[in-house]
Amino acid sequence: MRLSLCSALLLLSVPATAQSLAPETAATAAALRDSAMQGTRAFEIVRSLTLETGPRPAGSAGDRAAVEWGVRKLKELGFQNVRAEKVTVPHWVRGAESGEIVSPWPQPVILAALGGSVGTPEGGIEAEVVQVPDVAALEGMDAVTAARVKGKIVFINRRMERAKDGSGYGPAVAGRGRGAIAAGKLGAAAVLIRSVGTDNNRTPHTGAMRYEDGVPRIPAAALSNPDADTLEGQLGIAEKSGKPVVFRLKLGAHLLPDGESANVIGEIPGREKPEEIVLLGGHLDSWDLGTGAIDDGAGCAIMIEAARRIGELPQHPRRTVRVILFANEEFGLSGGRAYAEKYAADLPRHILAGESDFGSGRVWQADSRVAPEALPLFDEIAKLLAPIGVERGDNESGGGADLSPLAPAGVPVVGLSQDGTWYFDWHHTANDTLDKIDARDLDQNVAAWAALAYAVAEMPGNFGKAPEPAPRR
Amino acid sequence: MRLSLCSALLLLSVPATAQSLAPETAATAAALRDSAMQGTRAFEIVRSLTLETGPRPAGSAGDRAAVEWGVRKLKELGFQNVRAEKVTVPHWVRGAESGEIVSPWPQPVILAALGGSVGTPEGGIEAEVVQVPDVAALEGMDAVTAARVKGKIVFINRRMERAKDGSGYGPAVAGRGRGAIAAGKLGAAAVLIRSVGTDNNRTPHTGAMRYEDGVPRIPAAALSNPDADTLEGQLGIAEKSGKPVVFRLKLGAHLLPDGESANVIGEIPGREKPEEIVLLGGHLDSWDLGTGAIDDGAGCAIMIEAARRIGELPQHPRRTVRVILFANEEFGLSGGRAYAEKYAADLPRHILAGESDFGSGRVWQADSRVAPEALPLFDEIAKLLAPIGVERGDNESGGGADLSPLAPAGVPVVGLSQDGTWYFDWHHTANDTLDKIDARDLDQNVAAWAALAYAVAEMPGNFGKAPEPAPRR
Repeated sequence: MRLSLCSALLLLSVPATAQSLAPETAATAAALRDSAMQGTRAFEIVRSLTLETGPRPAGSAGDRAAVEWGVRKLKELGFQNVRAEKVTVPHWVRGAESGEIVSPWPQPVILAALGGSVGTPEGGIEAEVVQVPDVAALEGMDAVTAARVKGKIVFINRRMERAKDGSGYGPAVAGRGRGAIAAGKLGAAAVLIRSVGTDNNRTPHTGAMRYEDGVPRIPAAALSNPDADTLEGQLGIAEKSGKPVVFRLKLGAHLLPDGESANVIGEIPGREKPEEIVLLGGHLDSWDLGTGAIDDGAGCAIMIEAARRIGELPQHPRRTVRVILFANEEFGLSGGRAYAEKYAADLPRHILAGESDFGSGRVWQADSRVAPEALPLFDEIAKLLAPIGVERGDNESGGGADLSPLAPAGVPVVGLSQDGTWYFDWHHTANDTLDKIDARDLDQNVAAWAALAYAVAEMPGNFGKAPEPAPRR
Repeated sequence: MRLSLCSALLLLSVPATAQSLAPETAATAAALRDSAMQGTRAFEIVRSLTLETGPRPAGSAGDRAAVEWGVRKLKELGFQNVRAEKVTVPHWVRGAESGEIVSPWPQPVILAALGGSVGTPEGGIEAEVVQVPDVAALEGMDAVTAARVKGKIVFINRRMERAKDGSGYGPAVAGRGRGAIAAGKLGAAAVLIRSVGTDNNRTPHTGAMRYEDGVPRIPAAALSNPDADTLEGQLGIAEKSGKPVVFRLKLGAHLLPDGESANVIGEIPGREKPEEIVLLGGHLDSWDLGTGAIDDGAGCAIMIEAARRIGELPQHPRRTVRVILFANEEFGLSGGRAYAEKYAADLPRHILAGESDFGSGRVWQADSRVAPEALPLFDEIAKLLAPIGVERGDNESGGGADLSPLAPAGVPVVGLSQDGTWYFDWHHTANDTLDKIDARDLDQNVAAWAALAYAVAEMPGNFGKAPEPAPRR
């Protein structure tokens, strides 16, 4: 383990990780928690964001409006050192898109290009459909079967399972990320996936996909679940009679030159150690289909409101609470990377970082990734959240996508797991809108983050240097 | 009351309406009911319809495919006298459509033209939005307020309430039907309505609208509920600062020359009185946005399967059970009108008519409209359905839209009320797809219709001549 001089000094100066909370700190944190449960401005904040900016994919006019909104809103709410720090972002646009089954039983379907997909030629691509159960089947295909994929449209028909902890996402999203590479290697004309989502609405789920150098870049789109059912159903009947199912895909998707966005930052400056940071993050961008209410308007609102309430205390905590609304999480973590680079020298003074980016469901578990010797301290803080239904989790939190660039520097992170039972009904779809949010659920999130952030900003100790995160499963 | 000679003779020949069911008739009806509860082919039938035809609005290629499907399916299932009886239908097409809030906070919204709407000029209509709570407010507007509507886009923001019996539909749908007339009279440029639906999906609800001779025909569209929320929200904030909300609407909707469709008919011929008819109807057309699984693939499948099971009995009932899959219910009742006209002379021999056109929810009430003296007979038959959760309702049933043209002839009708709690989440939207149907719910519907239709086709008596239906509330 490499310890920077700075953090080594911090660790050695006192046995800081062993110091527990002062009773008055715990009492103030509990008061923050309990008052937030009585009602907060979080819903009002996310309402304002969605009404006044709408969809805000990286590089779009909505994105620019969101940066302006962020600066205006943080100032209006009393934050200090409010600034928009420029971030260069890729600018992908969807364009017009359509899909239809041409034969044996013609009908239109509803689909959405995956983020980053190339478009089709103007007249579209018309080809027979070959179905596979998942991307692994495509990657592990024997040569004889693989030869049948050439020139075809591959349909990856993997259904996502519903779970409170969102654990159905990882296995299902592999096809979205790697499908175009695997199908492209076999010479496929395009790839369609069943939406990575748990709903049965005609609202397809977009999300980032990848290409690989040296592999043909083929168009990639997601069918809504009911449309995937239709395609699956026609394939099933057609197979019995030996008929091919032919599909026509038109995608207008393309990349424009890089655009400019910004990380929007506001602070509640610490009264004693303003250079030490408790970072509360969300991301300001959204996909283009919805208004990004749950992804991640909710997270932004929760963090803004949690910090605002800390700032309204009779005195600020010792350390600075810094809210960051990251640029372009969805399409490449531009904001998270830019922040980690810009603030590299300051990262040893980032005492804890957390991101809220899992919708608006209630928090039910507090995970961490802190130095092992700091676990008793984190456990003590996590206990503050027990009265609002939050259990202590493990010490293997990823902390949130935008925080991943901070991991090499050993910045300790907290992850407050939210109830994701319904999140993937709406995630990355047109249905990601304000009406999906229950204001009381946001209040509970605010309660948890406010109590936790205050305690960490006020406590005498720290969480040391966090171990490297476990490799992603 | 005018009685045709024919029905007068029927009524006078015996006190037919007083005769009760033979015990063996009741037993066979109960057996039909109970065996259907064990599983039927109804789901398989609606699956076949939706997969093999898709959306089928009047006059479309899908409509023609559905007529072919109907003839093929009825023959395949053993019906006799299968035929497609030509019906001329209007042919309205949606074309491309879009909507966006232009200012103060630009964002796209999702909307759908109402059925029958004219299109906008190619560049669209851009105008300030004026909000009204319902169409009555528009119709009752004083002159000063009305003057403010001229040249504007009127937004009728009436929310539909959820109810098991669908009773929220009537009050909300008034704005869809009459909105363009009321706004057109005041010189509005276009009319937008909040979708007549109980969901919060980005799937707007279309449905028929009307124009009135002498009133300017203005474009009319429905916003999905979340988009209506956005427009309402921006109007609310903008009003405080005196800013106008400006909207741009583009509709490519237009009428094509009339098309040809058909009522598809199949029969289980009666063994003694084949000229006496028990009519079981559904409608074969759907709106263009979904695949018409619940509206009205489910109804067609329920009726086909109920009749098919009667046809499989060791002997057919005395009277003919006639299944009719009506053409173009949605956009003007073309099929229902054509049937009433073509079979005008035979209507006195229509012993009972029923239509299933309220989705796939379970039946919970049996309503009728029969001669008052026949009520004990209907009550007796309705009791057959009590074991599967069906209560006896009133004698004021409308019987179904396609049956309304039969009312002047006094054809008795039955209405089996279905649980409509969720129906209006999906009604007339892209979300009207197969996945919304629970196969066991269809089985219960089949059980109810099979038992009822069999009993009526076998019973010695009849229901006399039905009174005119009460005026629609």
